[in-house]
Amino acid sequence: MSEAGFTRQLARFIVESRLGDIPQPVRHEAKRATLNWLGCALGGCRDDAVGRVLAALDEFSGPRRATLIGRGEKLDALNAALINALSANILDYDDTHLKTVIHPTVPVAAAALALAEHQPVTGAQFLHALILGVETACRIGNAVSPGHYAAGWHISATCGVFGAAAAAGKMLRLSEQQMTWALGIAATQSSGLTEMLGSMCKSYNMGHAAKSGLIAALLAAQNFTSSERAIEAPRGFANVLARDARLNEITDRLGATWELAFNAYKPFPCGIVLHAVIDGCLQLRAEHRINPGEIERIDVRLHPLALDLAGKTAPKVGLEGKLSVYHAAAVALIHGAAGVRQFSDACVSEPAVIALRQRVVPQADASLDKIETYVNIILKDGRRLDRHVAHAIGTLERPMSDAAIEAKFTDLAAGVLPERQALETIELVWSLERNPDAASLARAVVPAPAAYAASP
Amino acid sequence: MSEAGFTRQLARFIVESRLGDIPQPVRHEAKRATLNWLGCALGGCRDDAVGRVLAALDEFSGPRRATLIGRGEKLDALNAALINALSANILDYDDTHLKTVIHPTVPVAAAALALAEHQPVTGAQFLHALILGVETACRIGNAVSPGHYAAGWHISATCGVFGAAAAAGKMLRLSEQQMTWALGIAATQSSGLTEMLGSMCKSYNMGHAAKSGLIAALLAAQNFTSSERAIEAPRGFANVLARDARLNEITDRLGATWELAFNAYKPFPCGIVLHAVIDGCLQLRAEHRINPGEIERIDVRLHPLALDLAGKTAPKVGLEGKLSVYHAAAVALIHGAAGVRQFSDACVSEPAVIALRQRVVPQADASLDKIETYVNIILKDGRRLDRHVAHAIGTLERPMSDAAIEAKFTDLAAGVLPERQALETIELVWSLERNPDAASLARAVVPAPAAYAASP
Repeated sequence: MSEAGFTRQLARFIVESRLGDIPQPVRHEAKRATLNWLGCALGGCRDDAVGRVLAALDEFSGPRRATLIGRGEKLDALNAALINALSANILDYDDTHLKTVIHPTVPVAAAALALAEHQPVTGAQFLHALILGVETACRIGNAVSPGHYAAGWHISATCGVFGAAAAAGKMLRLSEQQMTWALGIAATQSSGLTEMLGSMCKSYNMGHAAKSGLIAALLAAQNFTSSERAIEAPRGFANVLARDARLNEITDRLGATWELAFNAYKPFPCGIVLHAVIDGCLQLRAEHRINPGEIERIDVRLHPLALDLAGKTAPKVGLEGKLSVYHAAAVALIHGAAGVRQFSDACVSEPAVIALRQRVVPQADASLDKIETYVNIILKDGRRLDRHVAHAIGTLERPMSDAAIEAKFTDLAAGVLPERQALETIELVWSLERNPDAASLARAVVPAPAAYAASP
Repeated sequence: MSEAGFTRQLARFIVESRLGDIPQPVRHEAKRATLNWLGCALGGCRDDAVGRVLAALDEFSGPRRATLIGRGEKLDALNAALINALSANILDYDDTHLKTVIHPTVPVAAAALALAEHQPVTGAQFLHALILGVETACRIGNAVSPGHYAAGWHISATCGVFGAAAAAGKMLRLSEQQMTWALGIAATQSSGLTEMLGSMCKSYNMGHAAKSGLIAALLAAQNFTSSERAIEAPRGFANVLARDARLNEITDRLGATWELAFNAYKPFPCGIVLHAVIDGCLQLRAEHRINPGEIERIDVRLHPLALDLAGKTAPKVGLEGKLSVYHAAAVALIHGAAGVRQFSDACVSEPAVIALRQRVVPQADASLDKIETYVNIILKDGRRLDRHVAHAIGTLERPMSDAAIEAKFTDLAAGVLPERQALETIELVWSLERNPDAASLARAVVPAPAAYAASP
């Protein structure tokens, strides 16, 4: 074992892994990640970027056996993996492996679900593949962080391609030799620049990673050869795309710890520096049943960097609302929510929201942590309602509950799936380990033709 | 003009270029590159690597409108671009832009020909797209050389993806804005590690570049957005994948010089350090009508590095023959040729070849250039035949003639196409500028079903 290189050791681990050896909480986390991913894909599936990729590639599609989440169309598995990963990343609402800022589930689940529609795969196999794919992407990410992302690499894509290859390869029952090649074929396709953030290519990077990883596994299954030391060789991935990689992080305690345990879900589709503000406002609103009309002023203390990032006073469109502490506090207090609709173009123009955000008074406080906040609401009757939020909901210290992830899914599915179908999908995910057909997940998230046609 | 970034300036140049403004010798060079590329693809098309990619991806193919060179199958244009680029790189016999060691035609022509089978394209448009694609890949390569390749990037692929995008984008008549995006989408897909050399992934890198570049152009045609400074931005291609890039090399004298003028064709499918040896032996054999039985000894002086690289005394298989000065000299003198068949497994085992290579006496001489040689043949009757080769055939100083490229094509096509079909293909290439349908090139290089079935 000690003589095998890191690439081969990782391949061996993936091939030899048994689902029964993986702790139950990790398996449950895989279901949470799946539900969150499906919701994000439903929320993003009608974006322009998705439509344009589909317009470009539809005519090249092979046999249409794989579902586009939330849409009526089908494509071949490779193109479906591309588009489902792209959809799920559109809203920047996907899960985050906080140590590396990798969004691990997006490319892995997209490759795995597309393959599950191409060949029979059980729900348990899907979850197992997802766990191993996330493990692969995040461990490689750990090894090259923080230099790799800092250098300009879109780490979710560059490491995601390995995760997609690992997941698909596990489903294809690759041998150790083939899995080693699959990781190598992934390595030589690894790409994606953070320069693309702000353009449609940001999410394309995720789609390209999902598709390329799936291709890597399919090629390896045909004994297509690659370097067997693609990660650790002098001219391998870690040395060429990073400096000072710590390769031991790929293999240390492999099988004893699980990176999914460090995966977080975003409760709100806006900058993470605003999450504590929203959380504090939601808590105070719920506890004191605040009527927005009673509010005189909302004092918010934030780290100076947070205020820099999110200090937009008068957002005109939803995207600007995501960078506005004024808007975030106002919608949380008025709507009692801060979901996709609270960051829509319509919501930033609501008169009540505009009125209340003018009562928000942020203050920079360098003594705070970057994600910490103090919210103080002064009511017109003179009462002061205070809340200190050190760790917002959605951090590892205060993870979202299953119910909160369900609510997020329902919010994202609204307008795409009928509510009843959304609730059925939630049940399908929780029972996935006993489901003989993982592809039922894909079928569950397609709107009925009439519902789809009636949508805007 | 001066305010536009490098990416946009390059895009503008591609979009505004007219074939009539390109000097005739450059247009002729594009035909030579095309003929050489088709030959290389014919020579590689039956390799195991091609068969394995086809086995993996065939079932995902969309409408089968694009030809696999030298084979009976068709695939959708994206997968055909992948496989035709892969085939053409298998033998390491493809053209070389010597300043960067980019093999420029492979991904560019593969993307362009596949697209020409997808939509109507004239021969002139094909040549124009090829010229611009090569220009794009090589200028970007110039800007990041030599650091980029030295760092472990497979430059033919990492820069080739830009070339494929440029060529396909020109054919798709992209606007300047769209072409800028196409180059950006190419940048974020740019990948390929030299660690893969020695495995099937070496040639896969070329195929992946061809396909990804074609996709970039197709997406841009749908207004899929990207960074508009994807090459020069702080986190763009040049800074992330290289250090000390000289971005001005992308735009200096754009349209006044042409990188195809620096493109070389390999006359022999073996290490470049042996080309002068073969050249010298072929010259002496032809001039003196040497009978191998008359030869007492062959003294060869080489640079020590060349001898290190190609000092294998008793090759057992064809691949080893490519690294043997003994074998190279022997086959040149016996066969009067050093083509694909001279480096086959069969040829290295020929008794006459084995006998003669034992008469080859190489000597290291550090005073020589790495590609220079002195060949001295001592005949049994005491005569000495000497030849000094400073620049072998195939270098920029002594380019292969059109006739030599034709002969190389014929050699590579043998066993795949009937000789008459090979000769017709040559004529088709020379007259390509007047051909209303570039796709006729693809149809020309498919063997008749019977011929294909009868091949080994």
